[in-house]
Amino acid sequence: MTLDAATIEIPATPGRAWCEDMDRADALAPMRDQFDLPDGMIYLDGNSLGAMPKAASARAQTVVTHEWGTDLIKSWNSAGWFDLPVRLGDKLAPLIGADAGEAIVCDSTSQNLFKVLSAAVAMRPDRSVLILEGSNFPTNNYIAEGVAAATSGRVSVRLCEKDEIADAIDENTVAVAITHVHYKSGHVHDMAAITARAHAAGALAIWDLCHSAGAMPVDLNRCNADFAVGCTYKYLNGGPGSPAFLFAAKRHQGQALQPVTGWWGHAAPFAFEPGYRPQPGLRQFLIGTQPILSMALVETGLDIHLQADMAAIRTKSMALTDLFIHLVEQRCAGHGFTLASPREAAERGSQVSFAHAEGYPIMRALIAAGVIGDFRAPDTVRFGFTPLYVGYADVWDAVDRLVTIMDQGVWKRPEHQERDAVT
Amino acid sequence: MTLDAATIEIPATPGRAWCEDMDRADALAPMRDQFDLPDGMIYLDGNSLGAMPKAASARAQTVVTHEWGTDLIKSWNSAGWFDLPVRLGDKLAPLIGADAGEAIVCDSTSQNLFKVLSAAVAMRPDRSVLILEGSNFPTNNYIAEGVAAATSGRVSVRLCEKDEIADAIDENTVAVAITHVHYKSGHVHDMAAITARAHAAGALAIWDLCHSAGAMPVDLNRCNADFAVGCTYKYLNGGPGSPAFLFAAKRHQGQALQPVTGWWGHAAPFAFEPGYRPQPGLRQFLIGTQPILSMALVETGLDIHLQADMAAIRTKSMALTDLFIHLVEQRCAGHGFTLASPREAAERGSQVSFAHAEGYPIMRALIAAGVIGDFRAPDTVRFGFTPLYVGYADVWDAVDRLVTIMDQGVWKRPEHQERDAVT
Repeated sequence: MTLDAATIEIPATPGRAWCEDMDRADALAPMRDQFDLPDGMIYLDGNSLGAMPKAASARAQTVVTHEWGTDLIKSWNSAGWFDLPVRLGDKLAPLIGADAGEAIVCDSTSQNLFKVLSAAVAMRPDRSVLILEGSNFPTNNYIAEGVAAATSGRVSVRLCEKDEIADAIDENTVAVAITHVHYKSGHVHDMAAITARAHAAGALAIWDLCHSAGAMPVDLNRCNADFAVGCTYKYLNGGPGSPAFLFAAKRHQGQALQPVTGWWGHAAPFAFEPGYRPQPGLRQFLIGTQPILSMALVETGLDIHLQADMAAIRTKSMALTDLFIHLVEQRCAGHGFTLASPREAAERGSQVSFAHAEGYPIMRALIAAGVIGDFRAPDTVRFGFTPLYVGYADVWDAVDRLVTIMDQGVWKRPEHQERDAVT
Repeated sequence: MTLDAATIEIPATPGRAWCEDMDRADALAPMRDQFDLPDGMIYLDGNSLGAMPKAASARAQTVVTHEWGTDLIKSWNSAGWFDLPVRLGDKLAPLIGADAGEAIVCDSTSQNLFKVLSAAVAMRPDRSVLILEGSNFPTNNYIAEGVAAATSGRVSVRLCEKDEIADAIDENTVAVAITHVHYKSGHVHDMAAITARAHAAGALAIWDLCHSAGAMPVDLNRCNADFAVGCTYKYLNGGPGSPAFLFAAKRHQGQALQPVTGWWGHAAPFAFEPGYRPQPGLRQFLIGTQPILSMALVETGLDIHLQADMAAIRTKSMALTDLFIHLVEQRCAGHGFTLASPREAAERGSQVSFAHAEGYPIMRALIAAGVIGDFRAPDTVRFGFTPLYVGYADVWDAVDRLVTIMDQGVWKRPEHQERDAVT
């Protein structure tokens, strides 16, 4: 999966000076100027909500005051609102190895997964099993349950763990629907191999790119993927809850139909025909009116990514995560952290997780100290490293603050024990 | 349906002076100051995209630069992002006759209709027919087709026209799903009577409030409605494509389950349980992450509506539409306009349509003259009257410009014949 990405060796005892040298030599470092981040904050949660592009504020103003406030209803044409899902999908396409006309920005990841899983079930009417990863972010498995339930018993969901997936695929498999990079551990699945294995058995391969799009090279068409979904608010910096994306390989368009048959997916949405007639291309995956303001901001994130070299992003990402693991294990030794991500950079996405029995208060103490990561139940502290705005010295400083928290027992303070509603 | 709304008599030959007097006496007139509308524009398309509240611009800036840019991931708690669908639903509730905890803001109208129709089909397992209005805005009927198709033949869709609906309801009816105010003609269905008829037959009543919420009194609970959906970007001024809403009567919550089983509808979304366990209340109708920026702006529209008296809105709405019909028929007599809306104000929503063979170029000419209405295929010019920002003199001036366009044949100019992609 490293795809032309070079490897940077981490010295045995990296100091802050080495980190500063690395930042000075980093060709991606200037990209940070395109993001607004609060002073002093080390943001290691771009894998949950990406930082704000500086251009987002002006773009929001344009959409609100000019496109909505002044041009009003005319903006459906003049500002291209109606075509935004397709236009943004075409901008996204090169970042995920898709061709123009194969990706579309719309709805949420859960909804898009519902569409492609439902389409897959209809495309393989003689088969009965959807294979997903049991430890995956649960919405995928919940959605698959719902899709299976709608078949009145024909289709069921089989949950496997990483090493069981290939063997589970057989002539009864409708599709494998796997998240490319695991949300918690960060392990990377071999997209080419699993897709090939699925196709050899006559099954479809569906990829969830939530934790890989924008963070590492993804090449859907080289891997011959059938469908993909993913979100734009993590590594793609689209804003809170910005609409997700959906990929459907050209060969399936017009063949694969999703069941939420709204007017935006109709062949002639403005003809107001009495019956539903599916649009023969990608737009059949649309349902209804899109949230234009949230969607428009997706573009400011994409525009930054299109300037960056994905191989350089991957090289830096592997180095940052290697450095972080190295420093935590070296400087927090004896404090009870166990690496919960693959040790080999090539097998990881752009994130690192550690298991710790007191992970929740430790993460709260870190956040209070300006190091923003997140906690995933029951015991995982998770850190995302976005090479566009995280540097080597940031990694040093983050670990330095963690060392203080652990050495001084800061995490034991009562204010760090409180649970938030959203964790 | 007039619900305490008084009737204002229109004089036989109303002049602009009478309109100006009416504006001066209008208690709602000051509400216009809360909206930004371009100088000189007469906006009669608030039934398609509502005008921008002045507060929207600052609210967008707060969400983008403060909640996203500065507080980042913490805003899921600190800015209440996760609870927005419920909090905004509770704000909306009094406008549609719902109680707190019965309305939720999320997704699109088409998606929400898919959810409630699917839930209804599951709640009436021994019944086989969904009844909708054939001439309705087509997405409703398309969505119903999709829901029926998913039942493998058990359920079918029956399309009726207005006067056939009551008689069509019988012991095979799953639900009637009717748009309260017709998108094109503006005719108002009798919500109480149709709901009672449905219940007498053991069927469910589902109401689409796209063209009534915010424009006229709606009392879902007084009518004993089961479910409702509607959009927030028309009369509720939520912004382009702002998320829609869904109403589920308390008695059905936990009983009615929708099939797109994403993590936001799970009983414990952050417990990351392996299997789907439906949230026992309204939140089961949520699927995945919501577009926060688009959703946040819904509040600026709702805040204005909560200051206004709905009976006063209805009284003025009926007067504006009566005046418009009167002036068009009087001053454009002989120009080929045929009223395509009910003549009785009590039977109309807040809109007026006229059929005209040259409706498309006439509407283009009107738009070029600063009177924004819209065209609905094949031959309807449609005008929405939002009492919060449209006055009596606006109606006079709009018709005055129409008179010029018709008398001088302005609509015949070549530039008005061009078709836009979005009409």
